[in-house]
Amino acid sequence: MLLHDPQRRGFGSDNHSGVHPEILEAIAAANGGHVGAYGADPYTERLQEVIAERFGEGAEAFPVLTGTGGNVIALQSMIPRWGAVLCSSSAHVHTDENGAVESVAGIKLLAIASDDGKLSPELIHDQSWRWGSVHRGEPLAITITQTTELGTAYGLDEIRALADYAHGHGMGLHVDGARLSNAAAHLGTGFKEMTMDTGVDTVSFGGTKNGLLFGEAIISLKPGSLHGFSHLRKADMQLASKMRFISAQLIALLETDLWLTSATHANAMATRLADGVRGMPGVEITQLVQGNAVFAILPPGIFERLSAVAYFDEWNPFTREVRWVCSFDTTEEDVDTFVDALRGML
Amino acid sequence: MLLHDPQRRGFGSDNHSGVHPEILEAIAAANGGHVGAYGADPYTERLQEVIAERFGEGAEAFPVLTGTGGNVIALQSMIPRWGAVLCSSSAHVHTDENGAVESVAGIKLLAIASDDGKLSPELIHDQSWRWGSVHRGEPLAITITQTTELGTAYGLDEIRALADYAHGHGMGLHVDGARLSNAAAHLGTGFKEMTMDTGVDTVSFGGTKNGLLFGEAIISLKPGSLHGFSHLRKADMQLASKMRFISAQLIALLETDLWLTSATHANAMATRLADGVRGMPGVEITQLVQGNAVFAILPPGIFERLSAVAYFDEWNPFTREVRWVCSFDTTEEDVDTFVDALRGML
Amino acid sequence: MLLHDPQRRGFGSDNHSGVHPEILEAIAAANGGHVGAYGADPYTERLQEVIAERFGEGAEAFPVLTGTGGNVIALQSMIPRWGAVLCSSSAHVHTDENGAVESVAGIKLLAIASDDGKLSPELIHDQSWRWGSVHRGEPLAITITQTTELGTAYGLDEIRALADYAHGHGMGLHVDGARLSNAAAHLGTGFKEMTMDTGVDTVSFGGTKNGLLFGEAIISLKPGSLHGFSHLRKADMQLASKMRFISAQLIALLETDLWLTSATHANAMATRLADGVRGMPGVEITQLVQGNAVFAILPPGIFERLSAVAYFDEWNPFTREVRWVCSFDTTEEDVDTFVDALRGML
Amino acid sequence: MLLHDPQRRGFGSDNHSGVHPEILEAIAAANGGHVGAYGADPYTERLQEVIAERFGEGAEAFPVLTGTGGNVIALQSMIPRWGAVLCSSSAHVHTDENGAVESVAGIKLLAIASDDGKLSPELIHDQSWRWGSVHRGEPLAITITQTTELGTAYGLDEIRALADYAHGHGMGLHVDGARLSNAAAHLGTGFKEMTMDTGVDTVSFGGTKNGLLFGEAIISLKPGSLHGFSHLRKADMQLASKMRFISAQLIALLETDLWLTSATHANAMATRLADGVRGMPGVEITQLVQGNAVFAILPPGIFERLSAVAYFDEWNPFTREVRWVCSFDTTEEDVDTFVDALRGML
Repeated sequence: MLLHDPQRRGFGSDNHSGVHPEILEAIAAANGGHVGAYGADPYTERLQEVIAERFGEGAEAFPVLTGTGGNVIALQSMIPRWGAVLCSSSAHVHTDENGAVESVAGIKLLAIASDDGKLSPELIHDQSWRWGSVHRGEPLAITITQTTELGTAYGLDEIRALADYAHGHGMGLHVDGARLSNAAAHLGTGFKEMTMDTGVDTVSFGGTKNGLLFGEAIISLKPGSLHGFSHLRKADMQLASKMRFISAQLIALLETDLWLTSATHANAMATRLADGVRGMPGVEITQLVQGNAVFAILPPGIFERLSAVAYFDEWNPFTREVRWVCSFDTTEEDVDTFVDALRGML
Repeated sequence: MLLHDPQRRGFGSDNHSGVHPEILEAIAAANGGHVGAYGADPYTERLQEVIAERFGEGAEAFPVLTGTGGNVIALQSMIPRWGAVLCSSSAHVHTDENGAVESVAGIKLLAIASDDGKLSPELIHDQSWRWGSVHRGEPLAITITQTTELGTAYGLDEIRALADYAHGHGMGLHVDGARLSNAAAHLGTGFKEMTMDTGVDTVSFGGTKNGLLFGEAIISLKPGSLHGFSHLRKADMQLASKMRFISAQLIALLETDLWLTSATHANAMATRLADGVRGMPGVEITQLVQGNAVFAILPPGIFERLSAVAYFDEWNPFTREVRWVCSFDTTEEDVDTFVDALRGML
Repeated sequence: MLLHDPQRRGFGSDNHSGVHPEILEAIAAANGGHVGAYGADPYTERLQEVIAERFGEGAEAFPVLTGTGGNVIALQSMIPRWGAVLCSSSAHVHTDENGAVESVAGIKLLAIASDDGKLSPELIHDQSWRWGSVHRGEPLAITITQTTELGTAYGLDEIRALADYAHGHGMGLHVDGARLSNAAAHLGTGFKEMTMDTGVDTVSFGGTKNGLLFGEAIISLKPGSLHGFSHLRKADMQLASKMRFISAQLIALLETDLWLTSATHANAMATRLADGVRGMPGVEITQLVQGNAVFAILPPGIFERLSAVAYFDEWNPFTREVRWVCSFDTTEEDVDTFVDALRGML
Repeated sequence: MLLHDPQRRGFGSDNHSGVHPEILEAIAAANGGHVGAYGADPYTERLQEVIAERFGEGAEAFPVLTGTGGNVIALQSMIPRWGAVLCSSSAHVHTDENGAVESVAGIKLLAIASDDGKLSPELIHDQSWRWGSVHRGEPLAITITQTTELGTAYGLDEIRALADYAHGHGMGLHVDGARLSNAAAHLGTGFKEMTMDTGVDTVSFGGTKNGLLFGEAIISLKPGSLHGFSHLRKADMQLASKMRFISAQLIALLETDLWLTSATHANAMATRLADGVRGMPGVEITQLVQGNAVFAILPPGIFERLSAVAYFDEWNPFTREVRWVCSFDTTEEDVDTFVDALRGML
């Protein structure tokens, strides 16, 4: 039964969109008959090959249900019980997961202020101390988000510098890749070049924000980098029984260039939107647009009227900063109508 | 891409089966356009009405991703941090969730030996003590499974007796209803009669084992019975971003009689299977068949050969007990072929 | 200011007694001046030597504040995050620590019914399965209590059999030794013979119940058996800042035969008490008296009257079983007066 | 046996000192005979009266073993499972408790940068948002330290402003009072005026750093402000069995002016030390001296030589900042000798 308007789209988030038609087809194709549950199925087996092709020889994938689940269990399996994790102050794991990493994994986060959502060895340096002490939580992993929660992207050199810094100090490097495809599309590079080749240890690869119904894959890029992940995935309630349907979606996303086509399109729509509003009186684009999100400050009184045209969220009520996110199904007309509406309000 | 044989079915588990065609249609119908994430969508809104119709006025539903997640968060939201929960020694939460309730929720389980998987006030009595002490975990909730992990079903009077006992001792009663539809089909009753009317406080209603792709709903039958559930669902990593697709499936399952048709069929297949093998030399049916599962002891040497005919698991390697589970898509021919194969081996 | 009657003693528990005078002297002797906190002091250093003398070469001690803390952190440092621990159904860690091992360490306990508080390979066997599965918590450690919570003691052969069983199945063996001195006194053996020589991996050595003001020592008997204990002790809030005063007490207890003298005396008082009441009409001694505790069933109506003579607790209100515990400072007169009082009531 | 030099004192920490003689006497006086364990003793009962006298009518005290334990359980009992806590970036709970609040209590800390260790409504404002959302941990409590970890003290008005801000936003205010006596001595005020009268909800009152052997008291200043504390204290392994000895120490500290005499002296020694070194070439006092600690930057090459004279710690290796802490037993001669030694090195 149809309860919503399938022609209505907004800029609220890339998880407001639905499922890409090719992904729905992949689900249907994997249906029928009985296969083993909890990953003992041919789709999850095949997924390993696809991941190894995309992320490099030796990469191993563990499907999970949510991005939060993936991040938390990845970090939990990277460090001992008493370790701490360095992250940006805008990191999803810090600001949007309701303390999951603290309450489920018991991990201490050391959040570092960052204007553009990115970390660097310089920023990390201040918090990188007291290893060997039992008093402060030892910083034993770094997590970065690619693209960041502020729509910016790390360059390959920036990731490599962080990986080198991490390994030089006995830490591991985790990438929250909820929008890793958008970053790869922006940089014009592959996943292997962006992660395994730069020294990243583990990745939370996101599918949901790029057209999947649900499903993410946690990826180990080095043997043993996700210690006990299978056990923790079950204990932390992220083990799907009918896993074939997550794996089939991820295969469909990654086996062809669907991941790239969708991400490239979403990025282009964000750029089109930013270009459209840039220079309007009182409108300020606040971050580089290096993925599928645009951050902007609007003049007073605009937010309520504009969000009635197409839904989007206020990012910071103190500064009138808003966030616009584009999806695989955002159209040029969606963007142009929105831009025109804003122009008309100014 | 098809990687499995869609004509091959076994008796391993009801989560070895795939998705019921009507459920897949419901997913497709809910697709397209943008709706709010994390439950702020019209499908999740509509689900509340469907649940209230099936479970009674005032019932409130919280979709989650897995049965384990549902059980753990339900129990966690029913008791304070220091409470303990009484369960059967064969309870899924005790034997098959890898300590999730202990590690995620920090809850102590007091498992009570039970031959048929069921609890009773008499069985519970021995563990029901020391309220008010800070030394032993106070037993503050009881969880039962309907149908049980051993394929048996509680009668309405049995549930009512447990609810009365629980409330008389300051405890709440939770029902793990991963196979609640099978129990309702067996008893010829509705969900409201089985839960709200007997005094149950909260239910984990399972969809995955009855033809859903994924998705369960935790149901509060009394105001405040799930304290802080929304917060805990996020913190415990069970909040789906594209929740519309869980809600649409549950609507499709419950709005019509699909839940009943599927469960009745699966139950019938289990009965057919049990009837088929009963009386064979060396074969002993060990539990009442009151749902979609059959437990039986096989003669020596049979397990390996028979499970090659159609997959199923050994339940207890010490006693040669096995478990056969039927699904919505199990056919009479599946059963008969299997029974014939066993007959041929004896 | 004196607020209690220092001449009044009962049979409630060995932690109802105070501090042995020699222990108080040791505290006073360690006072004055400044030493490093958190264990960086010469008393904690010296303690290592004393422990090695008593428990064998290579034994390493970590002072903690409470027995509960010691047990929980010991088990937590013996197994990975997802492991389960086998224990007796009367184990302190299961019945008297308010779910600390579940809530603080996230560990699942698999409690095994035992009439005399002791485990054996036979009893453990039923719960020893499903290693390698991610569904059930893997049993990765066994914990036993010596003497048990029911006042019985394992013989050396019994401990060795459990250690062999544990190691043969990839598990570690932990001994909750809250009353280890009483067991050693009963068996006429040393700690090394009872633990290191039988194959025990780790011990919670209790001091508080044998005359210390407070303080226990967790002992590793094999390198690496307590993985990350120092970190976990701090994170679990069991790291004393002025640790010199715990270490000084333990040195005073163990350097001389004070541990043995006190335990032997307490045991003798328990035996005297048991011998005194045995055979009285309606009085039944329910457990072997192999330490400093006596368990007995009393005739109806006696408990209230007798506990007014000298305080003690009802152990099981359903069966009228009570527990009497003797301490280092229990006198023969205390016992005889109590026995006479009971005789007079019958 | 004496293993250390009782005449040697340093400036490392106020927990490097031992036990005040009057405290040792109080322990000895409470010894002998049997009393109830776990707080069921007349000393713990009397402590309630002493606390109510010092902190105001209705104040209720719960003795615990360590400051870390007190802070963690206090915060855990103030907020629901999903709450977050605002603290200063130098808060002990954030920098020196090895993630206890995250791993034991599952609480998310939102640390706020502060130059002098103090928070204010202005500083808190930026982190005070998103109540009602399930995505970010809701900030539901504020914790401040008095005196702070940087040796500064909040004025009464500053505490009142924070309490008002907290309550105006649905939060509670907790004071980590490991050195509360030093603050009261500095401000010339009583505990009631500083806490109950300013609107503070709960206090961790520290004894160990002011001459106790061990022991702190968590104090509820309003009914229900520490929800379930007794249960959590046991589950979190902070329940002392022979609690009479903690209570007797706290009574001795608080019944007379011992707390004030000791704290006033320690403060005076810190002021003497600061006054002595102020103005020396290359020496910079970096914080106001409002308690018993002095923070200073030393010229290069001094730390190693000076700390050989009397032990103290480097606070920040990047800036050569050091910390000097004075105790109840620090003498004028200790200070003067140290100051002279530093003068001689410059």
